[in-house]
Amino acid sequence: MLQPPARDLPDIGDVRSAARRICGVAVETPLLEAPALGEIVGCRVLIKAEMLQRTGSFKFRGAYNRLSRLTAEQRRAGVVAYSSGNHAQGVAAAARLLGVPALIVMPADAPAIKIDNTRGYGAEVVTYDRHAENREEIGGRIAEERGATIVPPYDHPHVIAGQGTCGLELVRQAVQRDAELDAVLVPCGGGGLSAGINLAIAAESPGTAVYAVEPAEFDDTRRSLEAGERVGNPVGAASICDSLLARMPGELTFAINRRLLAGVLTVSDDEAGVAMRLAFRWLKLVFEPGGAVALAALLAGRAPALRGRTVAVVASGGNVDPALFARVLQAG
Amino acid sequence: MLQPPARDLPDIGDVRSAARRICGVAVETPLLEAPALGEIVGCRVLIKAEMLQRTGSFKFRGAYNRLSRLTAEQRRAGVVAYSSGNHAQGVAAAARLLGVPALIVMPADAPAIKIDNTRGYGAEVVTYDRHAENREEIGGRIAEERGATIVPPYDHPHVIAGQGTCGLELVRQAVQRDAELDAVLVPCGGGGLSAGINLAIAAESPGTAVYAVEPAEFDDTRRSLEAGERVGNPVGAASICDSLLARMPGELTFAINRRLLAGVLTVSDDEAGVAMRLAFRWLKLVFEPGGAVALAALLAGRAPALRGRTVAVVASGGNVDPALFARVLQAG
Repeated sequence: MLQPPARDLPDIGDVRSAARRICGVAVETPLLEAPALGEIVGCRVLIKAEMLQRTGSFKFRGAYNRLSRLTAEQRRAGVVAYSSGNHAQGVAAAARLLGVPALIVMPADAPAIKIDNTRGYGAEVVTYDRHAENREEIGGRIAEERGATIVPPYDHPHVIAGQGTCGLELVRQAVQRDAELDAVLVPCGGGGLSAGINLAIAAESPGTAVYAVEPAEFDDTRRSLEAGERVGNPVGAASICDSLLARMPGELTFAINRRLLAGVLTVSDDEAGVAMRLAFRWLKLVFEPGGAVALAALLAGRAPALRGRTVAVVASGGNVDPALFARVLQAG
Repeated sequence: MLQPPARDLPDIGDVRSAARRICGVAVETPLLEAPALGEIVGCRVLIKAEMLQRTGSFKFRGAYNRLSRLTAEQRRAGVVAYSSGNHAQGVAAAARLLGVPALIVMPADAPAIKIDNTRGYGAEVVTYDRHAENREEIGGRIAEERGATIVPPYDHPHVIAGQGTCGLELVRQAVQRDAELDAVLVPCGGGGLSAGINLAIAAESPGTAVYAVEPAEFDDTRRSLEAGERVGNPVGAASICDSLLARMPGELTFAINRRLLAGVLTVSDDEAGVAMRLAFRWLKLVFEPGGAVALAALLAGRAPALRGRTVAVVASGGNVDPALFARVLQAG
């Protein structure tokens, strides 16, 4: 597989530009102290609460940045996205704000709350069978028919730059709290959020180590780093972390992450559940399974040498069906 | 019943003084936009997220303010509090921060999470039978034996002033968002939070109407306002809103609330459950039942003439047992 030319990779200038575009539209999500969790793990813990973002996850950032850069003609023709749910809602909400028609291709087994909310933001939803059909093909065909623009879930410079705004806020908010960040843990599916945050941290807080965190069954970024090239997840892998089930790292995201990540950590579904329960108890925040993996890695002691240090955990989303959340709560 | 002398009532100066004392210790909880809920009710909705306060409810504010004013001798002798749970945790956490021994008298049927957390903050817990015993008597006897200071849950000037800091923040944060507050809805048990917020709003945003919200079965403040004097709740009244089950309004809190409240609204337990579910879905925040009554009143259309206006809803706490929360989620 060809490496993309360097000029296609977003840089810190793109992230700063995205921050100006989303200002006043996206929520500057709070960075919350978590002293009770800090006592458990023996370090100062800060939570970047992206479930409080518009649409319940960070995905609105990248979607809005991408859509805000479309020409008037492109806006009229609309956008098409494929997503398990969080990107779907981000694109749908950004499209509505900008008056752009949106069609979203979603797996039929996505959490009902994500499909309902996507429709609630006014988008057209087409479902597909995640095991038998290819969402990129379906999305590509529809986009071609309509002359619509595809908004990829992670592998696009504007999307990565938009997600990076989360990292800029994180650094600024940490400074406001007199917190010197030793490490940042970031949930990782296709790698857009970790790539964006890597760009922000490398520029503004270069002494901070950024770790991506994956479900153990979907550790494609970890194995890709080891292999030195992008490798996919085994067919049939399963996890309750529905927002992190990308098939393999993106070209652009991997090019950034391989250069800037301090490492990749993995957690089991059960460990994600433990994190969701502790977040319910001590933070009063709703974490979806995929949004809880970074906290789970911290709680499980996967991150090296953080005792006595300061670590920020990105809580990437909170879109979880009530029935699943109730099950996780009662499993404790 | 005698009215207390006016000099015992806290005023805005006490609230401002409390704000200086809790600064850097209490969390300045975020005021969050809730556009999805705003669409449902047809107005701009802001949520003051006190479940993100230390100990998961606003109670830490008043407890810390009270304890920080004890003399060195009083601190050594310790404090005693009686509480269904949120005040217990607030006092326990404040006591630990200030190095003060704390004993808390709690009903044996308080949510397990509240009893566990209170012990977790290092306090001694004594339980009693809510239906057969009098917590004030038990607390008073123990305090006398130990020479300890009682920290009442609401009817004390320092406690009311501490809770009022929530109102000061609310006004300042609304200004930062260019939001002119038409109304503020506040959950009401003994009336400490509504009294404190009333003091802050009357001084800093006098055009804003403050409504207290009670469980329909515990509408003692509503009936007391109608009667022109404090009246209690019927024996045997029940509600899932465990944090709002005060027997009657406090003397000081009622003296403030009767003067400043725009009105009192009531909601059923089912309506509190609806609010908890919508908050889960759209806000990704954990509301305990009592903490959800203000949002419930807004959603049920109880507050008069708010269409097109701006309303802040105080979400007073999030300490709810996982089993109850799971039940509420699945009742939807």
